[in-house]
Amino acid sequence: MSLVIVGSVAYDALQTPHGKVDRILGGACTYSALSASYFTPVSIVGVVGEDFAESDVDMLTSHGIDVEGLERVPGKTFFWSGVYSDDMNDRTTLVTELNVFASFDPKLPASYRTKPYLFLGNIQPTLQKAVKEQMNGVKLVGGDTMNYWIVDHRDALLETIKEWDFLLINDSEARQLSGKANLKHAAATILDFGPRTVIIKRGEYGALLFWRTNGGIRWVAAPGYLLDEVFDPTGAGDCFAGGFMGYLASRGIDLATAEAEPKELLRAVIYGSVMGSFCCETFGPERFRTLTRAQVDARFQEFQAATAF
Amino acid sequence: MSLVIVGSVAYDALQTPHGKVDRILGGACTYSALSASYFTPVSIVGVVGEDFAESDVDMLTSHGIDVEGLERVPGKTFFWSGVYSDDMNDRTTLVTELNVFASFDPKLPASYRTKPYLFLGNIQPTLQKAVKEQMNGVKLVGGDTMNYWIVDHRDALLETIKEWDFLLINDSEARQLSGKANLKHAAATILDFGPRTVIIKRGEYGALLFWRTNGGIRWVAAPGYLLDEVFDPTGAGDCFAGGFMGYLASRGIDLATAEAEPKELLRAVIYGSVMGSFCCETFGPERFRTLTRAQVDARFQEFQAATAF
Repeated sequence: MSLVIVGSVAYDALQTPHGKVDRILGGACTYSALSASYFTPVSIVGVVGEDFAESDVDMLTSHGIDVEGLERVPGKTFFWSGVYSDDMNDRTTLVTELNVFASFDPKLPASYRTKPYLFLGNIQPTLQKAVKEQMNGVKLVGGDTMNYWIVDHRDALLETIKEWDFLLINDSEARQLSGKANLKHAAATILDFGPRTVIIKRGEYGALLFWRTNGGIRWVAAPGYLLDEVFDPTGAGDCFAGGFMGYLASRGIDLATAEAEPKELLRAVIYGSVMGSFCCETFGPERFRTLTRAQVDARFQEFQAATAF
Repeated sequence: MSLVIVGSVAYDALQTPHGKVDRILGGACTYSALSASYFTPVSIVGVVGEDFAESDVDMLTSHGIDVEGLERVPGKTFFWSGVYSDDMNDRTTLVTELNVFASFDPKLPASYRTKPYLFLGNIQPTLQKAVKEQMNGVKLVGGDTMNYWIVDHRDALLETIKEWDFLLINDSEARQLSGKANLKHAAATILDFGPRTVIIKRGEYGALLFWRTNGGIRWVAAPGYLLDEVFDPTGAGDCFAGGFMGYLASRGIDLATAEAEPKELLRAVIYGSVMGSFCCETFGPERFRTLTRAQVDARFQEFQAATAF
């Protein structure tokens, strides 16, 4: 079933121990959409400037991504530049030029408004809320956030996520949002804020998913995929989101009834990990130029063999 | 099938954010043996001093542990004291008094020498090797080590582990021993040293197990169990070893043929995680006073539900 993804579309300059690239397609919306496109039809909402290359539009449309909601306005595209530490566990931002993204005010094309699945990438919580309000009868909505919104826009964030089916967050953000160090307690507190499900990403260590049932909080866990080499981790978390949400949409899953289907939730988490792992294999989103669904499913099966007992 | 465990038996003084205890039964052999006793008959080899309490011998024998190889000699029992950081991810050693453990020269009782399973706790590699040489026709042998032996006794360690069916090691030690940062590469290098299997423990993030097949290196992964509260992590790694080895022994598994049974290897890893998690619930080995096999199996099943897809 169709999935709408809202978020940043950008150009990045990246430097990892394996090399550097001065200008490559980036942004959370871009990564999530490319990843989700392996599972389900995707429509994106974003904004770019006059410098946005036609070849990058082609990269998206060649994956069947609907770009009607990709607005092009006067000015330059969001630009980010960062450098990774030797072990790639830390990165330092060198440049953030918001450019046209600074006044991003997402408006959904009429054709998007009745689509059943919505993923809200990491943008200002009030904008995330406004996007959801433009949708009619959305079946499943979830999103991402970051430390800046947690600390400086906490009330708006809580007002926004309380209506979500899932919140996707990393472990340090989960601790920050909940004020709890233990991840099980952090998840319980976040579920009390309203989202039906919380997925806590733990980088190379995989992810946890929590939800509430009549019998208490339940959880599933997936280890991270073991890559031979992490070339560039940029976008891995966004690709996780795309794989997770894309799989749910492809199966028509409604989290309101997910209690009966923990295996499906875990499969969605595993597909998230699989897509995040492919993303790390080359600079930026380059891996998606050649990646096939058969390769995705082969890695999913490798995961299954490595975790089934 | 019977399992022989060799290693330290000690008294510990512990301080965690939840409280402190001045003198409690400890030592790697103690924790591993208590943990393994839930799965298979266990015989221990260790040394204690005149101060070793009869009630602590009773703690072991009440779990059916054969203490014929627990030597009592003049002097005091090994004593260790440590304090944990607020998040319990770090601990500082305050006191290490080797006492009678300084001259530990493990001698196996005649009745131990034909037993089929042997676990060599973290002691000097040459002693580990000498113990194995006292065994006749051992079916499966594995062991633990630590940074001190890796750095200062590297040649002896390599000479010892090359004959093992498995090496159990944590992630930082695996990187130190192999000189490789990537855990998949680290595992490949360690397998080249000779052990048939390597298990890399990742603390709260679970564990990975690697082995070589004709088709290349295979791996299985298990996430860590999510505890409501970590009260005292002392001994968790040793309890992991006991659960892992105890399960293998209970099933009569021979790692020489394990290629056909990755699910059994993963079950052993999961039982290791389960036993490590129980260990963290109270000070020292106190949890084993009340723990039942039914509770162990219930937690194993919770793990299965949380990871099966």
